[in-house]
Amino acid sequence: MPVYAVAVRIVKVPLGKRSYEIKIGTGLLARLGGECRKLGLSSQCAVITDSRVGRLYGAAAVNSLKAAGFEPVRLTFPAGEQQKNLTNVESCYTQLAKHRLERKSFVVALGGGVVGDLAGFVAATYLRGLPFVQVPTTLLAQVDSSVGGKVGVNLQAGKNLVGAFHQPRLVLCDLDALQTLPARELRAGLAEVIKYGIIWDARLFGRLERQMARLVTNDTAALAAVIARSCEIKAEVVGKDETEGGLRAVLNFGHTVGHAIEAVSHYGRFLHGEAISIGQVAAARLSRELLGLPSQHVERTIQLFQTAGLPTRLAVTPGLQRRLLNAMKLDKKVSLGALKFVLARRLGAVEFGCDVPDALLKRTLSQLNT
Amino acid sequence: MPVYAVAVRIVKVPLGKRSYEIKIGTGLLARLGGECRKLGLSSQCAVITDSRVGRLYGAAAVNSLKAAGFEPVRLTFPAGEQQKNLTNVESCYTQLAKHRLERKSFVVALGGGVVGDLAGFVAATYLRGLPFVQVPTTLLAQVDSSVGGKVGVNLQAGKNLVGAFHQPRLVLCDLDALQTLPARELRAGLAEVIKYGIIWDARLFGRLERQMARLVTNDTAALAAVIARSCEIKAEVVGKDETEGGLRAVLNFGHTVGHAIEAVSHYGRFLHGEAISIGQVAAARLSRELLGLPSQHVERTIQLFQTAGLPTRLAVTPGLQRRLLNAMKLDKKVSLGALKFVLARRLGAVEFGCDVPDALLKRTLSQLNT
Repeated sequence: MPVYAVAVRIVKVPLGKRSYEIKIGTGLLARLGGECRKLGLSSQCAVITDSRVGRLYGAAAVNSLKAAGFEPVRLTFPAGEQQKNLTNVESCYTQLAKHRLERKSFVVALGGGVVGDLAGFVAATYLRGLPFVQVPTTLLAQVDSSVGGKVGVNLQAGKNLVGAFHQPRLVLCDLDALQTLPARELRAGLAEVIKYGIIWDARLFGRLERQMARLVTNDTAALAAVIARSCEIKAEVVGKDETEGGLRAVLNFGHTVGHAIEAVSHYGRFLHGEAISIGQVAAARLSRELLGLPSQHVERTIQLFQTAGLPTRLAVTPGLQRRLLNAMKLDKKVSLGALKFVLARRLGAVEFGCDVPDALLKRTLSQLNT
Repeated sequence: MPVYAVAVRIVKVPLGKRSYEIKIGTGLLARLGGECRKLGLSSQCAVITDSRVGRLYGAAAVNSLKAAGFEPVRLTFPAGEQQKNLTNVESCYTQLAKHRLERKSFVVALGGGVVGDLAGFVAATYLRGLPFVQVPTTLLAQVDSSVGGKVGVNLQAGKNLVGAFHQPRLVLCDLDALQTLPARELRAGLAEVIKYGIIWDARLFGRLERQMARLVTNDTAALAAVIARSCEIKAEVVGKDETEGGLRAVLNFGHTVGHAIEAVSHYGRFLHGEAISIGQVAAARLSRELLGLPSQHVERTIQLFQTAGLPTRLAVTPGLQRRLLNAMKLDKKVSLGALKFVLARRLGAVEFGCDVPDALLKRTLSQLNT
């Protein structure tokens, strides 16, 4: 697809003194240095990226920062979800110390969700917190992980078990970066976009139904609009509940089952977006049983994931069912031993903190076979 | 020394929604469970301690928590400043996951500064933050490190380079624990108490001059009063500047040189309190040159450290001087390449952000020889 220039959209994340902007448009990577200058950040900085994104965009980021008078160092770790670990965190710390970054230095996270989460955690904890800027290069990171300040890494025992809340000073979503994104990763990102429709905005859901064919072919203009709307929704939710005391839980629609699917497959078989696609199908069916979500909405949901080329089924053997249930019980969303679900009453309206009877949960997991 | 029961003193740390109390008295460890109950903490918790303190007080802490209906697990790492590292942090994470601690679980830090800093960092970052309770068992931890929410660990490259701000829900200073504290560590703690006199309260300084002979013999009643006053001062400073935007820097009086002394001796030769004792002597002399601190106050300061049995001299060879200056430049207190000092105008009144000419700094380091 050719890249069309689109107007830069700005979404504000309203968090008092920690408020910041998300900028969405084309050609933004070249403007990274100038944007950091506008924030009044000081000269020393570290661009943290992975081997894949670094090869594609590392030089552009570093050059833009240098052109604006900054002194960037580049830190690269190997690409892949398995790399979101404490070993790479420690290696970043060591390099920040070697390059003598100070409290007023800053970190740029250049990459997908893994890079943003890991670099954000490094920024949250080095010298008790450095400012940081997110430059998400995948759709998933642009609509979800780069916004809202959740940063962290995985343990052997589970995903995102270690982390912090550390808001970026700016999120720069360059739509051009999506042009090098593998089609499978683009589709995975769309799983989170569909989620925003389900939890918050039936109109967005309708637009996705109409435009999915364009979106999956990486149409920049179509993507710009739904990315901006997704960021607006995330910003609104995070602005009301920064540290997940309540409302923010709605962002976890489909994630309880989704995370369990990722965990039992050792984060190897499914991308996050694929796992939560299946998870959202399960959540939609639970919603029908417990909150009366109309069957027709369940069907439209399944259809939309399928149009996006996302999985909606899983071969759930009795053994897998048991492993999934165990995985859910180690999930961070467990509270005092009880699993809590986010469920939809209708498209665009969800409730959080819902209890689900064990028998129904088991039956719903089995239904994923069909 | 026999232990006398003293009235429990309560100091409030005023931080809005994150406010908490410091309780200072005898027999408090046995009341740990009840105090946690009053805070409304939920049942699962981890007591993190080191091998030395765990042997002395681990059972008492665990039993008190159990008696109050909690389900504590005990995590122990080896004692020593060298243990305040990421390896032990990761091992704590793994055990918290194994015991399935949840977001509403809490952490109790039982021990000196190393335990409080490490356990606090674990609490700050596991599941993006668990509530935690500080039970400091050394004088240094009771008057300084347990209060104010600074938590973290060391890297090879430097001390406390990794960390967070994470306020405890309660600090319980049991004076009985000081009875098992080696005399050398008690004296090291007094170095921070003397610091509070210098930076904030000339009356406290005068009291310390009069009572130092009692304090160094571990007199519970005398200690209770100066611990409470020290905590009040720290609470007041932290209440005005939680994340070290400015004022909180005054707590670093003597620490720029002190940290450098610790770093170049690889944290082996001096206890922290001993290093900052020497550092405060250097800071007092710099204060005389730059802010007109009366010579008589400098002499009283040196005399007080000596009465407390703390070192005030250091054999500074040209090679050591160079290493000390290098170490200061990696210090977190460096801002945009410039070293900033806290200096005293008179006893009880300091200024922060002071520039010190290189030549004067070198001369002052040399003076430590005499």
